Amino acid sequence: MTQASSTQASSLTNRRVVLASRPTTVAGPENFRIEDVAVPVPGADEVLVRHLWLSLDPYMRGRMNDARSYTAPQKLHEVMVGGTVGEVVASNNPKFAKGDHVVGMGGWQLFSISNGRDIQKVAVSGLPLQAWLGPVGMPGVTAWYGVNKIIAPKPGETLVVSAATGAVGTVVGHLAKKAGARAVGIAGGPEKCAFAVKELGFDACIDHRAVDFAEAFKKALPNGIDGVFENVGGLPLQLCMRRLNPFARLAICGLVASRYDGTPSSIPDISPMLSMRAKMEGFIVSEHMDVWPQALKELAGDIASGKLKYRETIAEGLDAAPAAFFGMLRGENFGKQLVRLG
Amino acid sequence: MTQASSTQASSLTNRRVVLASRPTTVAGPENFRIEDVAVPVPGADEVLVRHLWLSLDPYMRGRMNDARSYTAPQKLHEVMVGGTVGEVVASNNPKFAKGDHVVGMGGWQLFSISNGRDIQKVAVSGLPLQAWLGPVGMPGVTAWYGVNKIIAPKPGETLVVSAATGAVGTVVGHLAKKAGARAVGIAGGPEKCAFAVKELGFDACIDHRAVDFAEAFKKALPNGIDGVFENVGGLPLQLCMRRLNPFARLAICGLVASRYDGTPSSIPDISPMLSMRAKMEGFIVSEHMDVWPQALKELAGDIASGKLKYRETIAEGLDAAPAAFFGMLRGENFGKQLVRLG
Repeated sequence: MTQASSTQASSLTNRRVVLASRPTTVAGPENFRIEDVAVPVPGADEVLVRHLWLSLDPYMRGRMNDARSYTAPQKLHEVMVGGTVGEVVASNNPKFAKGDHVVGMGGWQLFSISNGRDIQKVAVSGLPLQAWLGPVGMPGVTAWYGVNKIIAPKPGETLVVSAATGAVGTVVGHLAKKAGARAVGIAGGPEKCAFAVKELGFDACIDHRAVDFAEAFKKALPNGIDGVFENVGGLPLQLCMRRLNPFARLAICGLVASRYDGTPSSIPDISPMLSMRAKMEGFIVSEHMDVWPQALKELAGDIASGKLKYRETIAEGLDAAPAAFFGMLRGENFGKQLVRLG
Repeated sequence: MTQASSTQASSLTNRRVVLASRPTTVAGPENFRIEDVAVPVPGADEVLVRHLWLSLDPYMRGRMNDARSYTAPQKLHEVMVGGTVGEVVASNNPKFAKGDHVVGMGGWQLFSISNGRDIQKVAVSGLPLQAWLGPVGMPGVTAWYGVNKIIAPKPGETLVVSAATGAVGTVVGHLAKKAGARAVGIAGGPEKCAFAVKELGFDACIDHRAVDFAEAFKKALPNGIDGVFENVGGLPLQLCMRRLNPFARLAICGLVASRYDGTPSSIPDISPMLSMRAKMEGFIVSEHMDVWPQALKELAGDIASGKLKYRETIAEGLDAAPAAFFGMLRGENFGKQLVRLG
């Protein structure tokens, strides 16, 4: 969805969050600015979408930096990038009608204009709309790709996932169990850990905030680790490295620990990569569009049948987005972090 | 080749090097002991081999430790493990005749007994015998596997290899060029670097002992890095991480830097694994026996035709093996490190 294609303005007001400055050390709400601008009128073939839900995801922290990465950095003074579910309120595109629910990258704002090629209609189903930003959206497909295409757990193997109750980790645990593997989560605090085991079906969940974290980690992994789905980096990844089994696979999905405060995630001793003949692979789910239909179909089915459970944290209104975003980076959310916009 | 299967002893003396103690910090010749024992007489189906050449390889340093790894550690007070080329001097095995040249894992000693199943006759060719311990032996196949099965360089890509003039690195450079890639070596000292470019055909070679190493590294890699063949670890690997291109592949073959003095090889910032969607894989060539025939055939052909050049450092006599071994770990050898035994 683009901002700039329409020159006319409607009488509606579009509130938006733009990147005001790049973080130098710890990022915070002061790096954002909230603006009110006129809602553009859709031009030829364009669609105006009113956003109902905004997704907050850790990758956004990376975009705030001006660093060499897989995408161009978020531009200063432009709307923060973000996944949205919305409702078509005006359409000059024959493929979309007023009232259609669409998912896209509408950004941190109340309205967006689309050319119709960068939004998809939400498939008819009994799922709540915001699920298309979570377990049947980018986070769900991310989990699906990392588990099935990189780790490929075999029955009886052990898979560890950090941020286990988060939007991605929840689905990782589900898919690991489905493959017959032992699923061990890492999460912050006893409440999340209890939820992971009792509600999400993890075999064990280790509290990385507990004083005996390293000891508990070892105890929860008596047979070592065959697969690592890494969302966080930092100490959990370092502990995983020391418990790898031969031919372990590590899917590097995120390094939130380092992104929040700018301290890099390190591996102090990489020798297990050699001694265990391990494989480590970083990936970005948007580069694997071929798996999305299969993954979404499977995940939607598992939610509909009640096999895949998940949790959400909902912030109310766009103004709450910056605080909710940084809270998520600190692990203050519980499950998928969303912002309700309409 | 085993030691223990024969109870009789001949009148010949077998000199051997055993592991006397495990290194606590820096390993040294004091961890070895040289012994003279009687040469066993071959039993039923056994073969007595007199060694002509012993191969010295970095992996032996890892075996000196009592660490969890891909093989059992070298046992204390037993003959150090090592590849050998030798001549059959007595045979009770119908598959081997006196005078046959055989390659095997005879260890750091002058003679060994084989059951005939763990030695191979050296294929008839015009290659010098000791080449079967180098470019047409384990180091050559190691290079072949890492380049062709992990990195798979495409024409125009850039591949970096550390210990570029060593037994493995030499062949890595050759195979990278053969694949149409730019081959950039890292080696210690101007003499090795000049040799890599002028004789081995590398496009560039960077002296890691030079004061401007990091700067020269950057200059030699204007288009980034698509493949890393890592033999050393330490700073060169850290510099490589910062110059990775999207979808870079890193084959972890050895971490000699850390093995010599026990300081682990670290990666202070693993974020390029994610931002560049890189793959890193450790491997052990003995687990990929299926590629050996194809690799050896190709490498023998390339040596015979003069396309694959290499260099050797030869230590004279078994007593010189310990010093030569530690010299190699410090990079004092130039090319494949061998010990002439006969």
